[in-house]
Amino acid sequence: MRMALRLVRFRGAAGGRPRLGLEEAPGGNLVDLNAAEPELPRSMREFLEIGPRGLALAQRALESGQHRVLRETAQLLAPVGDPEKVICVGLNYHDHCQEQGVKVPKEPLIFSKFPSSITGPFDDIVHPQDTSELDWEVELAAIIGKRGRHIEEAAALEHVLGFTVANDVSARDWQMRRNGRQWLLGKTFDTFCPLGPAIVTRAAVADVHNLWIRCSVNGHQMQDSNTRHLIFGVPTLVAWVSRFVTLVPGDILLTGTPAGVGVFRKPPIFLKRGDEVQCEIEELGTICNRVV
Amino acid sequence: MRMALRLVRFRGAAGGRPRLGLEEAPGGNLVDLNAAEPELPRSMREFLEIGPRGLALAQRALESGQHRVLRETAQLLAPVGDPEKVICVGLNYHDHCQEQGVKVPKEPLIFSKFPSSITGPFDDIVHPQDTSELDWEVELAAIIGKRGRHIEEAAALEHVLGFTVANDVSARDWQMRRNGRQWLLGKTFDTFCPLGPAIVTRAAVADVHNLWIRCSVNGHQMQDSNTRHLIFGVPTLVAWVSRFVTLVPGDILLTGTPAGVGVFRKPPIFLKRGDEVQCEIEELGTICNRVV
Repeated sequence: MRMALRLVRFRGAAGGRPRLGLEEAPGGNLVDLNAAEPELPRSMREFLEIGPRGLALAQRALESGQHRVLRETAQLLAPVGDPEKVICVGLNYHDHCQEQGVKVPKEPLIFSKFPSSITGPFDDIVHPQDTSELDWEVELAAIIGKRGRHIEEAAALEHVLGFTVANDVSARDWQMRRNGRQWLLGKTFDTFCPLGPAIVTRAAVADVHNLWIRCSVNGHQMQDSNTRHLIFGVPTLVAWVSRFVTLVPGDILLTGTPAGVGVFRKPPIFLKRGDEVQCEIEELGTICNRVV
Repeated sequence: MRMALRLVRFRGAAGGRPRLGLEEAPGGNLVDLNAAEPELPRSMREFLEIGPRGLALAQRALESGQHRVLRETAQLLAPVGDPEKVICVGLNYHDHCQEQGVKVPKEPLIFSKFPSSITGPFDDIVHPQDTSELDWEVELAAIIGKRGRHIEEAAALEHVLGFTVANDVSARDWQMRRNGRQWLLGKTFDTFCPLGPAIVTRAAVADVHNLWIRCSVNGHQMQDSNTRHLIFGVPTLVAWVSRFVTLVPGDILLTGTPAGVGVFRKPPIFLKRGDEVQCEIEELGTICNRVV
């Protein structure tokens, strides 16, 4: 049973605790899943741990036409706020390798962010005092729905619940020249992982390896590519990572960014306070974050 | 109110879900905290989020003399199983820099493991098929008890609940020559972070910067140093990391390993299946893990 759903987390008009919900359509109104099915958890990770039964309840809530929430009254949150892992891939588009003059890698290059870097699809990116080289990276993110280790490539997509849009915000000075060239710190300041607006389940995406992917800053297009240019596709990445670690529901896998980041422009361009960064992927949606 | 406690997680003789407990004395019998105070959570992270009130309940349970569990009937688990972050420090003992011929770093070098690498104090380390250079690293680990960002060094210890023993198990081939020299994969295979046996609260440790720290393999001593030789002490590390990320209760900070790891021996020595690795820190306790 493959269900076409757009899962979200949101806070209602009255504020309060985060709630699980569904987008009725891309950019459309929401259905309050916790109101429709009071026994469901509030955490997306716990919801995903339930597996197909949780998704069936979500489908039923969507079809009921009940518990609607007007989108403009809701604050959308990152669809997963408490994953065990945020796994990231470097150098995974041909043109992004080209723009920095490095060879196309023979195997995936894996790094990570801490979950504390996750922020909402329309929340602010906090420009740290500590960097003068703040940069953007639009990325396709896969959300793990099923536990696994040593996953075969042929079965890998069964472990992916769906996809969302991510911005792998990066402090290039910390990534490239500080911290013994370990990328972690430059990638994991608080708010360096805007995510959303929804987890779009696999059944709702025609072909995840043929989606345009774009990033603009203050309305100027900076990145414009297509996921067909990924060097290692989603099944390869899921299989690769699971050689090392057990993947669990809620894990987030950022698949890398195409060409057009700020640091490799001539001259380089970096984000400053007041800038607005918009990341968009076909069929998945748009996130937009102001730098403060 | 500073309480001298030795917090553990364990599974009872009948198996079942993990429980919170206390060591009555180093290596001694346990008190079942969930039996003594049924309203307390089962997760150490959630318990630490409660703060001082939770610790006061633990103290009361210890003093009650009730709900004792014989140590030999219990399986001790990693004291924190589901942290948001496992933060690691590289090159943080003078003699460990010396043995590999690198300069003493001017600032801490931070990397990470995924929480999925955590395993119990007496559980097996699974030797991956994928490495031929499996190595040990005994480390002092600090456990965060209080949320904070931009923490001042002078106040940093207030954010540390206590300390435990860790083994920063490493696949040197993956750490040093693969994955674009990003250390993550070589550090984060499942079971690469044995932890325990207890979180020993600050009040129970005379001076965390004056504890002997040792590792032996099959009874042969491989590492033998003292935490007074740390380059960056615990307050400096806590303050440093909090420049980048918000620290939260349950976060684990591994503070680096002294000289004597396998890879820099002449000739190098690596762990093989059947080996037994014992890591021990004065006042904190001993963990012992078989390689399988």
